[in-house]
Amino acid sequence: MTKVFVNIALSLDGYMAPEGMTLEHWDTPEFKNWGAKWGALMAWVFDQQYFRQMLKLGPGGETGPVNDLVRSTTERIGANIMGKRMFDAGERAWPEEAPFHSPVYVLTHEKREPWVRPGGTTFFFVNDGPERALELARASAGTRDVRISGGADVIQQYLRMGVVEELGIALAPVLFNGGRRLFEKLGEPGPQFRIDKVLDGPAATHLRYVRR
Amino acid sequence: MTKVFVNIALSLDGYMAPEGMTLEHWDTPEFKNWGAKWGALMAWVFDQQYFRQMLKLGPGGETGPVNDLVRSTTERIGANIMGKRMFDAGERAWPEEAPFHSPVYVLTHEKREPWVRPGGTTFFFVNDGPERALELARASAGTRDVRISGGADVIQQYLRMGVVEELGIALAPVLFNGGRRLFEKLGEPGPQFRIDKVLDGPAATHLRYVRR
Repeated sequence: MTKVFVNIALSLDGYMAPEGMTLEHWDTPEFKNWGAKWGALMAWVFDQQYFRQMLKLGPGGETGPVNDLVRSTTERIGANIMGKRMFDAGERAWPEEAPFHSPVYVLTHEKREPWVRPGGTTFFFVNDGPERALELARASAGTRDVRISGGADVIQQYLRMGVVEELGIALAPVLFNGGRRLFEKLGEPGPQFRIDKVLDGPAATHLRYVRR
Repeated sequence: MTKVFVNIALSLDGYMAPEGMTLEHWDTPEFKNWGAKWGALMAWVFDQQYFRQMLKLGPGGETGPVNDLVRSTTERIGANIMGKRMFDAGERAWPEEAPFHSPVYVLTHEKREPWVRPGGTTFFFVNDGPERALELARASAGTRDVRISGGADVIQQYLRMGVVEELGIALAPVLFNGGRRLFEKLGEPGPQFRIDKVLDGPAATHLRYVRR
């Protein structure tokens, strides 16, 4: 049975991305120090062997339980949903072989033909809103799961819809002091979660919550 | 050597207290549902035997590692620092035997004589700012530690001063969707922490960070 899940990295003060991390400043990571901040947030994953292989970052890397978590999280994904801003940034940042290896549904008002990348990633541009994107993602995920990839706005939309069954957070001990928050605009009553599993890594704490 | 530490409960969306939890609405916990929210945040501690004994809440309670953590956190405290708003709320909510059993330095503009409670708690009212309160607290803590008790504003002041050596967070899987945030107004560069210890409880995740 396909599950809908979120799996993101979060700063200790609740931000998914630091202030200044926008397309406009993509080539100036020193702007508001966004590059160093984002690097500190993601340091834990760049050390994992499976992630390094996937992004062709070179040999080496850790092979412990955090690596296993990255692998199992990646392998369960049958389809992804993301916002247009995340796609626009990724279009510049991802390698030719975009690191999804599955269909990606991009929420956008822009009309565009599917964009097929080597390695099994195809981006589909959905103009009919988040419910429709979820239908399409579910249909193509087969027995695997649907990941709501981001950004924060898109995750908030799906949290408000009450469809997120599992929420994975890699909580990194960094303070951004500004940026794009994950948890806001969730309404009342908001989604209800309980703790499912905690994996204690040295550079991030991996928290998994499931819907109550 | 006396350490300065913070140990608080936090909602998953980063709030120490829900919206509506103010003196004005102290007797109407249904206002904005603040009572139920705060109860959900603190549920983990009301189940612990040591906490129940301390607050004379009756027998029973858990005696596992979370209980040990509550006990060791309490027993290490030689002096407390808190803000006036927290004191005002506590003055109404604490039992006659206020649950500190040590000196409490209250940051306030109000001039008031020390207030001695049965059981070893004395409240001292400090009019000369947070540095002076910390000096007094250190002097009276002896070999034990100084806890910055709250509220959020006061913790932020000490975080900005760079004196907080240890930050303990009981992260509860509840969303407040508003209220008093812990992490804001911390400036650039903010305080730097690394993960020290994680205790995985069923109703809260106990995160301990130490200053880098």
